[in-house]
Amino acid sequence: MSDDAPLSAAYLEARLRRTGAERYHNLHRFHRRLHSGGCSYEEVQAWALNRYYYQSMIPIKDATVLTRLASIEDRREWRKRIEDHDGTKEGDGGVERWLKLTDSLGFSRDYVRSTEGILPGARFAVDAYVEFCRARTPLEAVASSLTELFSPTVIGERVSGMLAHYDFVSRETLAYFSQRPPQAKRDAEWALAFCLANAHTRAQQELVVKALEFKCAVLWTQLDALWTAYVEREAPPGVWLPAGWPQAHSGAAGVAA
Amino acid sequence: MSDDAPLSAAYLEARLRRTGAERYHNLHRFHRRLHSGGCSYEEVQAWALNRYYYQSMIPIKDATVLTRLASIEDRREWRKRIEDHDGTKEGDGGVERWLKLTDSLGFSRDYVRSTEGILPGARFAVDAYVEFCRARTPLEAVASSLTELFSPTVIGERVSGMLAHYDFVSRETLAYFSQRPPQAKRDAEWALAFCLANAHTRAQQELVVKALEFKCAVLWTQLDALWTAYVEREAPPGVWLPAGWPQAHSGAAGVAA
Repeated sequence: MSDDAPLSAAYLEARLRRTGAERYHNLHRFHRRLHSGGCSYEEVQAWALNRYYYQSMIPIKDATVLTRLASIEDRREWRKRIEDHDGTKEGDGGVERWLKLTDSLGFSRDYVRSTEGILPGARFAVDAYVEFCRARTPLEAVASSLTELFSPTVIGERVSGMLAHYDFVSRETLAYFSQRPPQAKRDAEWALAFCLANAHTRAQQELVVKALEFKCAVLWTQLDALWTAYVEREAPPGVWLPAGWPQAHSGAAGVAA
Repeated sequence: MSDDAPLSAAYLEARLRRTGAERYHNLHRFHRRLHSGGCSYEEVQAWALNRYYYQSMIPIKDATVLTRLASIEDRREWRKRIEDHDGTKEGDGGVERWLKLTDSLGFSRDYVRSTEGILPGARFAVDAYVEFCRARTPLEAVASSLTELFSPTVIGERVSGMLAHYDFVSRETLAYFSQRPPQAKRDAEWALAFCLANAHTRAQQELVVKALEFKCAVLWTQLDALWTAYVEREAPPGVWLPAGWPQAHSGAAGVAA
């Protein structure tokens, strides 16, 4: 088979699943720490605060993808993602459910919504995801959502692990995750079928794999930033710090001058 | 003085200089390690390889700013930055000088230019900088270049420190830095004068400070990514690894499944 002969749908799907098995953020040390009860209260606070930015930008990302889809049927399908996150009425939707988690961890909604205290590395990664969906082909934009193929299992591990290990979370405060698996499964199956049907050439198939690799890096980079700032306690200047933590660098100017 | 009364030019300049003293990446532990001889050869390789992406995007960033400047005189001034980086003839310019450094560290130019092996966290930070200059006001785009107010001193420390501690670098391979201080000084003085002259309201002055904070975070985030991947040896999947380093995660799928 020549290098640019298209892969079979089965082989492309296998490549995508292997990409997840090698790059999805369930392999990251922060996730293992979070699920196994190794995180401090402050580390869970930092994770929830920073991941709020990702959650809050998902409907913006999905609206961006909506602008790229030419078919009414495809847009009807994709619109469900925005409804899931923004909800259909006051107090409903995934973003609102994420705010219930940050409420329970002692953050004011104004502070969380301001995103003032989040890690620049997390913000840059999320913004790169939105920009990817704006600038790349619709096929790549859809393919970048395929990390959801791998999320239902991980969500199950996360919820059971967190409930078992942390007395400061509950089924109510983790309500976000109880809703996600069926939505993620529906969305991922649709996106996978879309990619298998629309990646005709080997070059398009490689772009689909690259888009999934990119999205895995978006998720991984957010956890790297959390680990550096809150596990190693090397937070960059200007971000949220737990009460009592020293500002890492504001006093250091003299040292390095 | 009311909270929204404009600051004096002298006070705004002092705020900008304090921002640099508190947030510029000379305060980052990777820079201290690099200058003091604490980096391994592989860490210096990783720094040069990843920073190539930043260097290579600076003329793109500056061309983006050029699209935002309404005045011919301002564009003439700003154009010098693109000339400095892209040069005026074959083999000239800052990007070319950076490639002399990566040459000397054993990378092929094709590999470096491909940017295939760079850290996603470094790429996202650099891309955020270009996007900032495209999307924000011209005042903020110019203000985001003000980190150059702080670079000449640091470049002096870096070159003397690296020459003193590493036998694998030389004045020739560090030629990039020998050219930069007078260019950076000229550019930073012009940009500072532009910001002081064009930030009329307190709100505009706050945007200027925020733009410098943003740019400090762009630089800081690149060094956080280097530290995690190459000092802690927790490289994300798919990036360049020194010969003999194990792929951190490709074998780990089973562990976290």
